[in-house]
Amino acid sequence: MWLEFGRVFQQLSADADVRAVVLSGAGDKAFTAGLDVQSASQDSTLMSDQKDPARKAKGMRAQIEEFQSSIGAMEKCEKPVICAMHGIALGLAIDISCTADIRICASNTRFAVKEVDIGLAADIGTLARLPKIVGSTSWVKDVCLTARDFSAQEALAVGFVSQVHESKEKTVQVAIDLAANIAEKSPVAVQGTKELLNHARDHSTVDTLRYTQLWNSVALQGADFPAAILSVLKRQKPTFAKL
Amino acid sequence: MWLEFGRVFQQLSADADVRAVVLSGAGDKAFTAGLDVQSASQDSTLMSDQKDPARKAKGMRAQIEEFQSSIGAMEKCEKPVICAMHGIALGLAIDISCTADIRICASNTRFAVKEVDIGLAADIGTLARLPKIVGSTSWVKDVCLTARDFSAQEALAVGFVSQVHESKEKTVQVAIDLAANIAEKSPVAVQGTKELLNHARDHSTVDTLRYTQLWNSVALQGADFPAAILSVLKRQKPTFAKL
Amino acid sequence: MWLEFGRVFQQLSADADVRAVVLSGAGDKAFTAGLDVQSASQDSTLMSDQKDPARKAKGMRAQIEEFQSSIGAMEKCEKPVICAMHGIALGLAIDISCTADIRICASNTRFAVKEVDIGLAADIGTLARLPKIVGSTSWVKDVCLTARDFSAQEALAVGFVSQVHESKEKTVQVAIDLAANIAEKSPVAVQGTKELLNHARDHSTVDTLRYTQLWNSVALQGADFPAAILSVLKRQKPTFAKL
Amino acid sequence: MWLEFGRVFQQLSADADVRAVVLSGAGDKAFTAGLDVQSASQDSTLMSDQKDPARKAKGMRAQIEEFQSSIGAMEKCEKPVICAMHGIALGLAIDISCTADIRICASNTRFAVKEVDIGLAADIGTLARLPKIVGSTSWVKDVCLTARDFSAQEALAVGFVSQVHESKEKTVQVAIDLAANIAEKSPVAVQGTKELLNHARDHSTVDTLRYTQLWNSVALQGADFPAAILSVLKRQKPTFAKL
Amino acid sequence: MWLEFGRVFQQLSADADVRAVVLSGAGDKAFTAGLDVQSASQDSTLMSDQKDPARKAKGMRAQIEEFQSSIGAMEKCEKPVICAMHGIALGLAIDISCTADIRICASNTRFAVKEVDIGLAADIGTLARLPKIVGSTSWVKDVCLTARDFSAQEALAVGFVSQVHESKEKTVQVAIDLAANIAEKSPVAVQGTKELLNHARDHSTVDTLRYTQLWNSVALQGADFPAAILSVLKRQKPTFAKL
Amino acid sequence: MWLEFGRVFQQLSADADVRAVVLSGAGDKAFTAGLDVQSASQDSTLMSDQKDPARKAKGMRAQIEEFQSSIGAMEKCEKPVICAMHGIALGLAIDISCTADIRICASNTRFAVKEVDIGLAADIGTLARLPKIVGSTSWVKDVCLTARDFSAQEALAVGFVSQVHESKEKTVQVAIDLAANIAEKSPVAVQGTKELLNHARDHSTVDTLRYTQLWNSVALQGADFPAAILSVLKRQKPTFAKL
Repeated sequence: MWLEFGRVFQQLSADADVRAVVLSGAGDKAFTAGLDVQSASQDSTLMSDQKDPARKAKGMRAQIEEFQSSIGAMEKCEKPVICAMHGIALGLAIDISCTADIRICASNTRFAVKEVDIGLAADIGTLARLPKIVGSTSWVKDVCLTARDFSAQEALAVGFVSQVHESKEKTVQVAIDLAANIAEKSPVAVQGTKELLNHARDHSTVDTLRYTQLWNSVALQGADFPAAILSVLKRQKPTFAKL
Repeated sequence: MWLEFGRVFQQLSADADVRAVVLSGAGDKAFTAGLDVQSASQDSTLMSDQKDPARKAKGMRAQIEEFQSSIGAMEKCEKPVICAMHGIALGLAIDISCTADIRICASNTRFAVKEVDIGLAADIGTLARLPKIVGSTSWVKDVCLTARDFSAQEALAVGFVSQVHESKEKTVQVAIDLAANIAEKSPVAVQGTKELLNHARDHSTVDTLRYTQLWNSVALQGADFPAAILSVLKRQKPTFAKL
Repeated sequence: MWLEFGRVFQQLSADADVRAVVLSGAGDKAFTAGLDVQSASQDSTLMSDQKDPARKAKGMRAQIEEFQSSIGAMEKCEKPVICAMHGIALGLAIDISCTADIRICASNTRFAVKEVDIGLAADIGTLARLPKIVGSTSWVKDVCLTARDFSAQEALAVGFVSQVHESKEKTVQVAIDLAANIAEKSPVAVQGTKELLNHARDHSTVDTLRYTQLWNSVALQGADFPAAILSVLKRQKPTFAKL
Repeated sequence: MWLEFGRVFQQLSADADVRAVVLSGAGDKAFTAGLDVQSASQDSTLMSDQKDPARKAKGMRAQIEEFQSSIGAMEKCEKPVICAMHGIALGLAIDISCTADIRICASNTRFAVKEVDIGLAADIGTLARLPKIVGSTSWVKDVCLTARDFSAQEALAVGFVSQVHESKEKTVQVAIDLAANIAEKSPVAVQGTKELLNHARDHSTVDTLRYTQLWNSVALQGADFPAAILSVLKRQKPTFAKL
Repeated sequence: MWLEFGRVFQQLSADADVRAVVLSGAGDKAFTAGLDVQSASQDSTLMSDQKDPARKAKGMRAQIEEFQSSIGAMEKCEKPVICAMHGIALGLAIDISCTADIRICASNTRFAVKEVDIGLAADIGTLARLPKIVGSTSWVKDVCLTARDFSAQEALAVGFVSQVHESKEKTVQVAIDLAANIAEKSPVAVQGTKELLNHARDHSTVDTLRYTQLWNSVALQGADFPAAILSVLKRQKPTFAKL
Repeated sequence: MWLEFGRVFQQLSADADVRAVVLSGAGDKAFTAGLDVQSASQDSTLMSDQKDPARKAKGMRAQIEEFQSSIGAMEKCEKPVICAMHGIALGLAIDISCTADIRICASNTRFAVKEVDIGLAADIGTLARLPKIVGSTSWVKDVCLTARDFSAQEALAVGFVSQVHESKEKTVQVAIDLAANIAEKSPVAVQGTKELLNHARDHSTVDTLRYTQLWNSVALQGADFPAAILSVLKRQKPTFAKL
């Protein structure tokens, strides 16, 4: 299933008809409860009878890399991704949502970085991304080391999510409206903005400024910038071609 | 005008009589409404008749670099800069204020990272600096991808500004008082503090600790540290020479 | 005394019987008032009669490095450290607590990054770590450049601490309960979580993901992961061997 | 074809029966003459009738990334790759061989970083890797800026290749012997050595040392280290299981 | 004079009529003997009567930065620079030539990293660049720590220069021929090659590959790539417009 | 013994009477034959009966780190270290000599990166440092992956050593003369040169230039620079105080 998750986002990234993406969970109960513990207890790599630790490690590295890469496809997707969460959102729910651009949730959402309670350090992305997504390191370490639940309101207060709505339906609707709003804008401007903000997370200011010069030296040659300028001057609503 | 902005801050940085700087906007209406769209629509580089994209790109890179460099002079200014904003603060207002040390604003300030609405990814610094200035990435991406307005209160809640006051006058007065307070302190201590905090943003902890050792190995040899210690012991108000 | 502080944390890091650490201040009045100004005024390196600035600098670099290294031992301690603060918490109190994993405090705590008021840029870690611990750079620069006090509530609002309690006693009790809670979990999971979160602070996302693959390729071969999975499936409370 | 090149190396990396790889060119005339200029002149992305430079750029970035990724699969292959070159080795020949671990060639090899002569900066890896593979930057810039030929002897003198042999046959035979020699050694030791040397190229010394600690903390738990030690003590030839 | 050196290279970088640059020394005796020791002994910053080490340091940092920046303008010049040296080439001669792209010299050139013999660590660029320009660190440290002379032949053997010729005249002629050869090629290809090689020196392979994708996504849209392809197919000599 | 090696170099670094260090091997036969295989086969950590791979890994990481740190003390020693090798120089001999500043050897030296032949990837520093010390990556990977011997002449040709002499006696004498030569120079200049060259290895050019400004802003305030200038002008031999 996770391999398919990755492939879906590779396709969304490449398909010029797609301008923004909303990810939500099916059903009323959960965004996702994370790892299926029953299934993990029978995982062939984790539980293989390979006795040599050095050899077993190679298989495990490859498996974790493949899993990280599938989930990370959402971050690499060149279109903005809005993650609308509700209900139970444990473990992998955090890994996944950390790769989204915008996180919003329903007021009934119950989050937890659950991994320490199943005996491991979270390895699909939470520990790499959460400290760069939320400002308070003390809070990040609290929830990661204790595996305790945190509520939608707490998630909003620390900035993990940027909006809380009263129900799943409302949350998904807001996410779709937000996506629709973004989809009307220049895809050159929108996708450039995502790319440059992601670049800034992992590079120095000087490096991002330099990369930005290069990015816009071609982006500004497209039709969107003059079209947008003109529509501002003429107070018309512009339309922008696919990208 | 932006070239002059850069030169002014180079001068403020070099002038030993200056110990802290306040930047505010003239008039009641706006800190700045950002790019002059009318003027941009006639910009000679952007709208040149050079048809070769590779050749046009070179001119555009150079122009963006010059613009970034002028605005960035405020960040490089060795004296603390307090940015006091009010009214309309769109587009370039965000690029500029991101290069300040301390941001405060009047309660009527209306902010927006406006660039996607004129068809481009913000390229004068907002996308490189905002994710490092504010803790919540979800909020940063929301305002950058939607170009929506955000209020003084919202800016305070996410930490973009650290104080909100009831009017422009009050905001500017607070900024001046803050600058005056800083100006009474040791300029060796103050300018070192700015330098080391800026270093920390773009370097690893280990690197900044090492740089700090070197910085203070000379700074502590100045007259200010013993003078400050003595004035604490004697409960006197110290004065510090220019730097 | 600070050399001993460092040695204590090296020992806590190595001692497999220790699973979590609480650091608090003795007495009712202060967590710590920071540098002893009287003593600093007589410090042999700072106040030496070595007249050659280049030679004096070498001694000072070495002294700052040793001090940084002693305080930094708390960050390097492989077990989670919870710092419970109360009362006066000035200067070095901030340097120290920035190296903890979780910061909580009593409501009467009075914090200040006091160093500029004694004529120096803070050099034991505050300026290197605070901007990476708290989301709002404007706030960080405000408190570092002005040396002003900030309260427990303000520290909570910006995320410097993640909990405030009504008294020192309550704060310490909560810290101990938190440590006890963490101590019951798998030490493989807990120490891995600390290591990976610290890695993320100073490396790119890609680098931390790669390091994580390697880390868990051996950590998951330990007894804790299957034991924890089993106890979840059987709804039993697991126990984990020392690490 | 290049997509297949990438897939072949992904398979070689994963297949535990493979312990070392030799890459050579078919036929007597050339290792590879690089880009097929005729075909490039009809490339659908490069020569597409998309007129919007911003939109055209997106397709080109994707195409270059895919090409880089296919060639880069050889570098990511966890087994050592020995590249045995002969005859004409232009353009892409350099991009490809830069991703090998060991480069050797026949004395008749004629190399050139040919790209500037077909109007572009080499973009499949030569400019990113060559300065890190060869010590003399003056030489690297000379051959990259002039596109001039360089001989096997010159390649040896600057360290681009580490052996030159009199003919293609001899070169390939030496490469196979070298691969056979490596294949008899512990694959845990060999693949770890490749991984750590590649890590060192792109990380600081401190980072690689830390990564090395982690790597060997599991690698040394395998059967190979004690087996190798024992065979040294007993002066026997060890055999090592697949990895 | 050095300020003018910097301004000249800024102008050469911007002037589209310039496609390659040769730097050589006037007269028969020396490329440059480096710092004028007599003049340095009267330098107003170095020898100022400012007694406060912290305050004096600020002036010195600014002065070194300005000097580094002037010399570094040659590295930032977007056109290739060939440095043709002869005779005495001491101290600053090394700082300067390290910022060139290609270094060649006459057989009578006598080099030395002379700074330790006048009591300082070289601070205009030699220590930052030489270890990245030459492969043998043992050699680099030998010549930097001893300040000993090294000959043209030794410089060639370690790769500091890439060609040695019998006289100054011949060396300069070769440099001019080399520049003329480069000047006939596509300036889009040539300047891109310089930019990407410089990027590679200071970034990871992954970063440079990504930057390369972006660079060529616009560069390949220019007229030069199809023109060059066509001229290869038609076996004609292409001409390329200014950049 | 290796702990003592580290402590000796910490002492040499701190002792102001020491200005340069020569490291050579006792006896005629070997610089060092590296790891004592007999002893390793009985190592308590490597061969412990701890069965839990995750727990065993922690002990091994700590042991490797301690070993790396002891050997790395030579690199951190602020005085230049010249490593004079002869005879057998295997395994750890390479790890050690890679942390020296200057490597020279006798013509009878027989080197090998021996670790793969005892079943491990070299983990005390060779794989982290060798690719940054020698220009030819193809050669580095050849010797590291095959564990083959290489001669003094080969070491000189690739730049691993910078001088070869006819005997151990001669080599040690040259090393001592070199050390004596360096010891007569300004220790401010010499130690600054070592620090800045080491900084350059692991930082970008821009970062090292900035660090250099700061370093010399205090170093140039010492007595050595004016004393050296004066002695050049007066053609006298200067003497420099301890550092």
